[in-house]
Amino acid sequence: MFFREYSVPFSAAKKFTTGLRLPILLFLCNSLFYRAAFFMMPAFLNDRFISNGEAVLHSSDLSIQRGYGVFDFLRTVNAHPLFLQHHLDRFFHSAENMHLQLPYSKEELSNIIHQLMEQSKLKEAGIRLLLTGGYSPDTYHISKPNLLITCNPVVTSTKEMFQKGLSVITYEHQRELPHIKSINYLMAVWLHPLLKEKKADDVLYHHNNRITEFPRSNVFAVINNVLVTPARDMLKGMTRKFVLEQAASFISTEERDIHPEELYHASEIFLTSTTKRVMPVLRVNDKVIENGTPGPVAAAMWELFMKMEQQL
Amino acid sequence: MFFREYSVPFSAAKKFTTGLRLPILLFLCNSLFYRAAFFMMPAFLNDRFISNGEAVLHSSDLSIQRGYGVFDFLRTVNAHPLFLQHHLDRFFHSAENMHLQLPYSKEELSNIIHQLMEQSKLKEAGIRLLLTGGYSPDTYHISKPNLLITCNPVVTSTKEMFQKGLSVITYEHQRELPHIKSINYLMAVWLHPLLKEKKADDVLYHHNNRITEFPRSNVFAVINNVLVTPARDMLKGMTRKFVLEQAASFISTEERDIHPEELYHASEIFLTSTTKRVMPVLRVNDKVIENGTPGPVAAAMWELFMKMEQQL
Repeated sequence: MFFREYSVPFSAAKKFTTGLRLPILLFLCNSLFYRAAFFMMPAFLNDRFISNGEAVLHSSDLSIQRGYGVFDFLRTVNAHPLFLQHHLDRFFHSAENMHLQLPYSKEELSNIIHQLMEQSKLKEAGIRLLLTGGYSPDTYHISKPNLLITCNPVVTSTKEMFQKGLSVITYEHQRELPHIKSINYLMAVWLHPLLKEKKADDVLYHHNNRITEFPRSNVFAVINNVLVTPARDMLKGMTRKFVLEQAASFISTEERDIHPEELYHASEIFLTSTTKRVMPVLRVNDKVIENGTPGPVAAAMWELFMKMEQQL
Repeated sequence: MFFREYSVPFSAAKKFTTGLRLPILLFLCNSLFYRAAFFMMPAFLNDRFISNGEAVLHSSDLSIQRGYGVFDFLRTVNAHPLFLQHHLDRFFHSAENMHLQLPYSKEELSNIIHQLMEQSKLKEAGIRLLLTGGYSPDTYHISKPNLLITCNPVVTSTKEMFQKGLSVITYEHQRELPHIKSINYLMAVWLHPLLKEKKADDVLYHHNNRITEFPRSNVFAVINNVLVTPARDMLKGMTRKFVLEQAASFISTEERDIHPEELYHASEIFLTSTTKRVMPVLRVNDKVIENGTPGPVAAAMWELFMKMEQQL
């Protein structure tokens, strides 16, 4: 629906003298159409359904003034919201730990989400729940929180992307209040130019000689035939939970501290996230992991995850 | 203009049977009037002058999605913007270090600020410059930044507040990218309930056995007859600069690392900020500093600062 192709009238098309201009025009049309569609998608702000284009906040909101808010993000598969209850639990946990009161129960939020899904007519969507510190008269103290829920098309990883894998760098950093899914991605966004310079796909944080997480993904490694993943100072994702549960049937698993140097001796490394599912990490700081191809545990997890999705 | 008193008609007033209701009504009237006035104040968004009520951002802005943006805040005294050039320098420094491109030169920004001051008719105002990561299609990467400049009434400290002084607590924390005035105040806002519990006015951060700064103020201490202030891992304020320059004529000054324990042996401690000017800190973690009254260096700096303001 959102990337439907545009036909360009022949009279207009024949004006193009080079082979490049038509693809550019098609790209621009698609881009404009995508933007228009984006603004027409349904959203929910505080107490009413609106269009995404109307999803604005006054600048006195504490997210704009002080970067203060929490969110959660989930995906729908064949019109089923994936791990909905867990996401709602985590959203409530984040809000409570940030001293922000949610104006609805989990059941009410679930109803709103289902209505958004129906209105959007999307079978595969990304649902984003955002709760900010609200319109703050002194721009510093929490006020009545603003709640925004959006429902948009979502891009997920493919088997081709899985095969290609990722190249990552490590970076010394500890997220503030890591058990809360706050909107603070200052360091993650700030590091984009470094990623570009290093030709890396993502950054793995470490602190006090322990790796913790990627900005938006969890990390796993197979070390001495054990599937290990950090247990503290990070945010626990739903795909991480799925992997820990499912992998236990064919490999020992352990949640423990992992020294950054251990990564270079891993037989495989992969990350997990809502949109990326399971993605092999084939290089860390330009060092090739094992033989530089996706490993069997990551492959098995990918298959199990896709199978679970197909059954929905 | 903004706190002008409201007279309540006698017929309405006589309905009140207790002495409390009239003050409450006056407060509400004032509050409503203040809100209306707030929304009518002039502002500047990207390329046009608007009213503050129109100062909204779409939720795809990177400040809302990822807490990504920079700002600066200055005060006007008798229609003179205080330390304007230094604030513009710091705003440009913050923007550049956050990979955000400002769409105007310092001279152009200065012109916009002066126009806002004229439109507001305020002689004493707070000018806030905000530059965000812009409307991000993928909610994660920097786009064309949004620039918002607001001009609002400002509350400053009084001599009475100076005499009363402040009670503060210390807290282990290091701001991310402390040399940048980013909008990340996650920890500061998150700590408000703790401040309330401890009956403290503010929180002084320390990290690696060094005190650094308050969330919105710089810290000074007089230790062994030397006026000391931290030199690194914090943001250098304009009032801090003024104090360092002016105090040098009557006391030795030093920018150096300060161990948290040193504070308890200080003969005086004070903080500096744009709105608070110079405020004595009389208690740290419930321990009284010296004799619990404002010290001579803070008092001298307050007088020098007020004198400078009066000459504008």
